[in-house]
Amino acid sequence: MSNDTEMAIQTIEWREDHVRILDQTYLPTREVYSDIRDIGRMWEAMKKMRVRGAPAIGIAAAYGFYLGIKELPENSFQSFIVEVDRVAEYLETARPTAVNLQWALERLKTTIRAHKEKDIAEIKEIVLKTAQTIHAENKRVCKKIGEQGVELISDDARILTHGNTGSLATGQYGTALSIIFHAHKLGKKLQVWVDETRPLLQGSRLTAWELMNADIPMKIITDSAAGSLMHRGEVDLILVGADRITATGNVANKIGTYPLAVLARENEIPFYVAAPLSTIDMALEDGSSIPLEERDGDEITRFNDSQVAPKKAETYNPAFDITPHNCITGFVTEEGIIEPPFDKAFKKLF
Amino acid sequence: MSNDTEMAIQTIEWREDHVRILDQTYLPTREVYSDIRDIGRMWEAMKKMRVRGAPAIGIAAAYGFYLGIKELPENSFQSFIVEVDRVAEYLETARPTAVNLQWALERLKTTIRAHKEKDIAEIKEIVLKTAQTIHAENKRVCKKIGEQGVELISDDARILTHGNTGSLATGQYGTALSIIFHAHKLGKKLQVWVDETRPLLQGSRLTAWELMNADIPMKIITDSAAGSLMHRGEVDLILVGADRITATGNVANKIGTYPLAVLARENEIPFYVAAPLSTIDMALEDGSSIPLEERDGDEITRFNDSQVAPKKAETYNPAFDITPHNCITGFVTEEGIIEPPFDKAFKKLF
Repeated sequence: MSNDTEMAIQTIEWREDHVRILDQTYLPTREVYSDIRDIGRMWEAMKKMRVRGAPAIGIAAAYGFYLGIKELPENSFQSFIVEVDRVAEYLETARPTAVNLQWALERLKTTIRAHKEKDIAEIKEIVLKTAQTIHAENKRVCKKIGEQGVELISDDARILTHGNTGSLATGQYGTALSIIFHAHKLGKKLQVWVDETRPLLQGSRLTAWELMNADIPMKIITDSAAGSLMHRGEVDLILVGADRITATGNVANKIGTYPLAVLARENEIPFYVAAPLSTIDMALEDGSSIPLEERDGDEITRFNDSQVAPKKAETYNPAFDITPHNCITGFVTEEGIIEPPFDKAFKKLF
Repeated sequence: MSNDTEMAIQTIEWREDHVRILDQTYLPTREVYSDIRDIGRMWEAMKKMRVRGAPAIGIAAAYGFYLGIKELPENSFQSFIVEVDRVAEYLETARPTAVNLQWALERLKTTIRAHKEKDIAEIKEIVLKTAQTIHAENKRVCKKIGEQGVELISDDARILTHGNTGSLATGQYGTALSIIFHAHKLGKKLQVWVDETRPLLQGSRLTAWELMNADIPMKIITDSAAGSLMHRGEVDLILVGADRITATGNVANKIGTYPLAVLARENEIPFYVAAPLSTIDMALEDGSSIPLEERDGDEITRFNDSQVAPKKAETYNPAFDITPHNCITGFVTEEGIIEPPFDKAFKKLF
């Protein structure tokens, strides 16, 4: 990844009094930037996946939260805090699965309560600064994930990835893609198999775009083709991200992750999940209680303006699945690579 | 399936001096019938998947073969047979994977040679009659497959299927879908999970259309969602078709079949392949020599007229994969259900 590219992709940017996002629904054909000045538009941007990817949603939610509280009356902390909780609840409904959203909002609410003796105007400034800190921290963490994961990549590695886990999904660099970018930067030769990732094609629209921008060789495949590539020995490593990780190491991630993990184990291919430690939700055991977002059926039955399924066709469109820890070779975090048993390793870390 | 529906869908029809096909590239939004009067247009129709599905390709190739030989000079059998072989070779290049195409052409060539003492004009008539016989036989065989497979379907079964294996893919009824149609006709309550089947969406475009026409409850899912449905216990049975089956029971079928089979075994769900016995290619052991058609990358990177991946993005677009016999619970054929060990069972049958 050249320095130019690093600077070029700014998925989310705070600009004095508003947020500028790169609207990912237009990619790869158009680079459209959108200025967001109120919480309602931020909610819509998250819901419609104009901004997406677990870490990026956390950052977007933090700025959205500030936009939601900055005009609140400043006379009483008690009525202020009631509104603060409402703002957080509202933002959470945009995307229920990623823990980063909740995590960012919790952190901001805790910060507010910790400063309740201060003027509300001052508290608001602290909230903005905290949002900016969350953003900056994520950039640092993603860089570290990339550096920590590089050792997994042998020269000439053929790496398969799913969804989008690059700069577009995070503050910068990404998670799984950060490892690929860093390996490429070190001069390692590699080739990436990019799952197109139905229904919203985060792979063919976004990951392919990021890899091509960075001059990393890649080929797009349908999600269904990944299995036979593994079976024929054409995949050396699988790297994916995560939206939420339980205390036992079960992973909620983009729909289609679970089949890849089972197929990787069947074909003895290492399967790694790259994610910041903030993705781990120690309050959850097995993941059965993770709310799995179900999205509109139109994402399957329509393509841009054209109908591809019969009208009134019923659909089921879950956006995420749960991968059990026993299909996962390891986690790549900012603190290093974590190997099984994950429950014990996580307990040590937290 | 009502009698009306049975009569309504005529995928391929011989009409005095030409073939009429239902052009499947327009479904489900438009029912466009196309009259095919020469071999070149039949080749194009198979290549572009206007007519598709292993058994239907066999039937189409048989009629296409007749269109290709009917104008040949009738003075010398020797020069006639040279042209006959050329016609067959040409048709085979349209779709290399399905054995039915080869099988139909071999049968026609054998028939011609068996009648070499007859007038060439008469031989041509015999070829047309044989093509019509292949068509009629396939209808009968598909009906039998449906009847034989019904016992696999318990009441309230939730059945997952991939690709399109219905009337559109065969002479009538289909293979895997024939079982579903017959079970429905017997009053069994069932629900079908329809894999959309990327890249050409045979599931959401064709299977959904056929099931809705027959009033069978169904829901379309992305191919990636099948795994988590299985994992959560929401699939009781998987039924797919086959393009070619080896002597050991390995199956070449629509890309995405192999992952489903591995996931079914992982989750202890019965996985059956429904196919006519003519799909079994006893000359093949493991299937590694089956030519797996690789199709144009545009099928992945473009959607109707819109580009969904970056321009010049590289792709890999195999149309089929191979499922090893040890992931398959059984085969449903016109002669009954075949259980492992398949190699022994097949030997007995042939």
